[in-house]
Amino acid sequence: MEFVATPARLSTTDAQFEHDFAQRLHWSADTDAAIEQRVADILADVQKRGDAAVLDYTARFDGLQAGSMQTLELRKEELKAAFDGLPAEQREALESAARRVRSYHEAQKKANGESWSYRDEDGTLLGQKVTPLDRVGIYVPGGKAAYPSSVLMNAIPAHVAGVEDIIMVVPTPQGVKNPLVLAAAYVAGVHRAFTIGGAQAVAALAYGTATIPKVDKITGPGNAYVASAKKRVFGLVGIDMIAGPSEILVLADGTTPPDWVAMDLFSQAEHDELAQSILLCPDAAYLDAVQREIDRLLPEMPRKAIIAKSLSDRGALILTRDMEEACALSNRIAPEHLEVSSRDPHRWEPLLKHAGAIFLGAYTSESLGDYCAGPNHVLPTSGTARFSSPLGVYDFQKRSSLIEVSEAGAQVLGKTAAVLAYGEGLQGHARAAEMRIKR
Amino acid sequence: MEFVATPARLSTTDAQFEHDFAQRLHWSADTDAAIEQRVADILADVQKRGDAAVLDYTARFDGLQAGSMQTLELRKEELKAAFDGLPAEQREALESAARRVRSYHEAQKKANGESWSYRDEDGTLLGQKVTPLDRVGIYVPGGKAAYPSSVLMNAIPAHVAGVEDIIMVVPTPQGVKNPLVLAAAYVAGVHRAFTIGGAQAVAALAYGTATIPKVDKITGPGNAYVASAKKRVFGLVGIDMIAGPSEILVLADGTTPPDWVAMDLFSQAEHDELAQSILLCPDAAYLDAVQREIDRLLPEMPRKAIIAKSLSDRGALILTRDMEEACALSNRIAPEHLEVSSRDPHRWEPLLKHAGAIFLGAYTSESLGDYCAGPNHVLPTSGTARFSSPLGVYDFQKRSSLIEVSEAGAQVLGKTAAVLAYGEGLQGHARAAEMRIKR
Repeated sequence: MEFVATPARLSTTDAQFEHDFAQRLHWSADTDAAIEQRVADILADVQKRGDAAVLDYTARFDGLQAGSMQTLELRKEELKAAFDGLPAEQREALESAARRVRSYHEAQKKANGESWSYRDEDGTLLGQKVTPLDRVGIYVPGGKAAYPSSVLMNAIPAHVAGVEDIIMVVPTPQGVKNPLVLAAAYVAGVHRAFTIGGAQAVAALAYGTATIPKVDKITGPGNAYVASAKKRVFGLVGIDMIAGPSEILVLADGTTPPDWVAMDLFSQAEHDELAQSILLCPDAAYLDAVQREIDRLLPEMPRKAIIAKSLSDRGALILTRDMEEACALSNRIAPEHLEVSSRDPHRWEPLLKHAGAIFLGAYTSESLGDYCAGPNHVLPTSGTARFSSPLGVYDFQKRSSLIEVSEAGAQVLGKTAAVLAYGEGLQGHARAAEMRIKR
Repeated sequence: MEFVATPARLSTTDAQFEHDFAQRLHWSADTDAAIEQRVADILADVQKRGDAAVLDYTARFDGLQAGSMQTLELRKEELKAAFDGLPAEQREALESAARRVRSYHEAQKKANGESWSYRDEDGTLLGQKVTPLDRVGIYVPGGKAAYPSSVLMNAIPAHVAGVEDIIMVVPTPQGVKNPLVLAAAYVAGVHRAFTIGGAQAVAALAYGTATIPKVDKITGPGNAYVASAKKRVFGLVGIDMIAGPSEILVLADGTTPPDWVAMDLFSQAEHDELAQSILLCPDAAYLDAVQREIDRLLPEMPRKAIIAKSLSDRGALILTRDMEEACALSNRIAPEHLEVSSRDPHRWEPLLKHAGAIFLGAYTSESLGDYCAGPNHVLPTSGTARFSSPLGVYDFQKRSSLIEVSEAGAQVLGKTAAVLAYGEGLQGHARAAEMRIKR
């Protein structure tokens, strides 16, 4: 069977551009009421029956029969054996990626994640103490989308933050384990791991069971059941963003080899038929050249069926008036991955307000960032980069305000606080402030 | 009618301590299915009918008839007039509090909220760009719990972050406006304000209507309808934590005047019958003294009915073996407000892992922090300090990773990425990395 990838060809000068553009971008995050109800039931059952419920659902959904939860734990030795059993090339690649991801997140912690305080003129101390979470759960998808790189990207920032207990869950349908995932857990220093998944794994981590310890936060991507379960337990535990389909937007000035850009668009499209790849460029001939490379390269791709469908249904090559307009459109999209494939990326970067990760220059393919450049590949999708951030050390830390009011400070602050507290009708607050004022 | 406040008297050496302690702490965040359904309907209706739906619900729930949304907007002049009409003492208190809150949040931004980057040995640039959200919505409760201080605490960090469009919503049942709330909006520099509330206001901010602009994030406390609505729109927009009842925990070494501590317990209890005030101290005689002050001071308190019920139902005076044990118990509670009422607070502070805000020393009453010390009073409640943080500048910022791989870097990283990508079966990713490698 032959596949054809025909991303929509749009131009910002077309009369119907706004309409076509909106239609391409449209993606409905509508929740499925049946899934919602099913998940609510699973959560309630795990909360009530604990391990027994998790075992039942694991048997039913993953086809994995286990006599006890203990047998579903992956021991350290098994993780190490998986690592030792890999070809040297894969062992080295995992370790090298882990090293770079670790060093980037250490820099992140140092730049933005340390405690701070100062004293004001009255000697009053003000600041924030930054501390790691005690225990976190990392959800790693199993089956067709089992990504060892995601194990590194979730576990390493938690480690760098100082989390002492990192619990990984990964479903292993029919008991089939992915050695790269196990090896990544070993390299990333996951503390405990269980072969469970779905809403039942989220429930076990959120409520705790006799075997699975209750965690403070759950991160990591998953299918619709996992996303729904995470949203439901939010508040009892912390969660990271709910992930939608993955997207790439390439801003090109026409100087990057067109086959590089075509392959970058493929590398997003190959994830999923719902993934979105968009190219913005002010040069129509360059868009033609990229389309030619798409046509030429597609037949070579093992995942050509997915790529063709994703590009044809959701992809777009958009002709813009100039690079400035391309940047403005990019801000409207707020893409997860944003490549600035230009000879002069630092000219455009300041114009870019919303994006999960910005890849600057022709050499910075998204795939380098996905695996080993260092920054996290867990990024806000579906326009949520307007208000949220890449997964980072900060997701595994929390802050406590520090306040030490001096005796002198209490005299001044006490009056202000009392006036405002009486104004709000909170006399206890006012009196507590006034008691510290010397008569 | 006479009121009596009888917090539970517990001791960690009691055989049934664990049971009694767990019972005191128990608070069910269970959601009400009827509220959930009602909120889902309101959200869907506002999404469909926009302004017309908001007007209908405002008439129905707030008893406020308005011919158009325009008449529900509070103009700048009206906010200024409210401020100008206040007694000088209140004007000065608001401005002084705003100044201190601003200066604390500026320090916070400088310490933990600036962009950063570095180049590695290959010349590859790695970092994060920190940028403000474009537009945020601030929910301010109306009616009996209308707190001008909350306006400052929500709007000022947004301002400091650099948010250019801060939209406040505040319900005004029967059209009654609170001049202190309006004045606080003026002082805090809110950009637009509307007298709407409830789930309909959250919906208007999340979806946008003809009159209310769609925002990127919604912060601020509210009742069960507001909390449920925020949780439902989470993902489409950002939200801050869902707030539960307020709590204070006082760790006392017995050196603070007992009436100060009694009043600090009141200042929490007076918020709400569900609020929780707990005192931990290794000195039984001191606990007796605080109870005597509670009995003596209660009759003077205008909100004595609420205080008595809150302390009797949910309060506790707990005798611990020593201060170390008190610190350990505090970590189990992860309180919203934590007073270290000790002569030597810096001895105990390092032992305290989980708390929204830590108030050090006898002069630092919680009420000073609530109004004007500088740190934010929007804090994680109900044990969520285990994984979340005070509202801050960081809630109004987001981050974009920056990656610029040099040509030399691409040669090294390309190999690692390709090995891992092939291992995950993502050939497009691998090829994109390999194309940047020189042959």
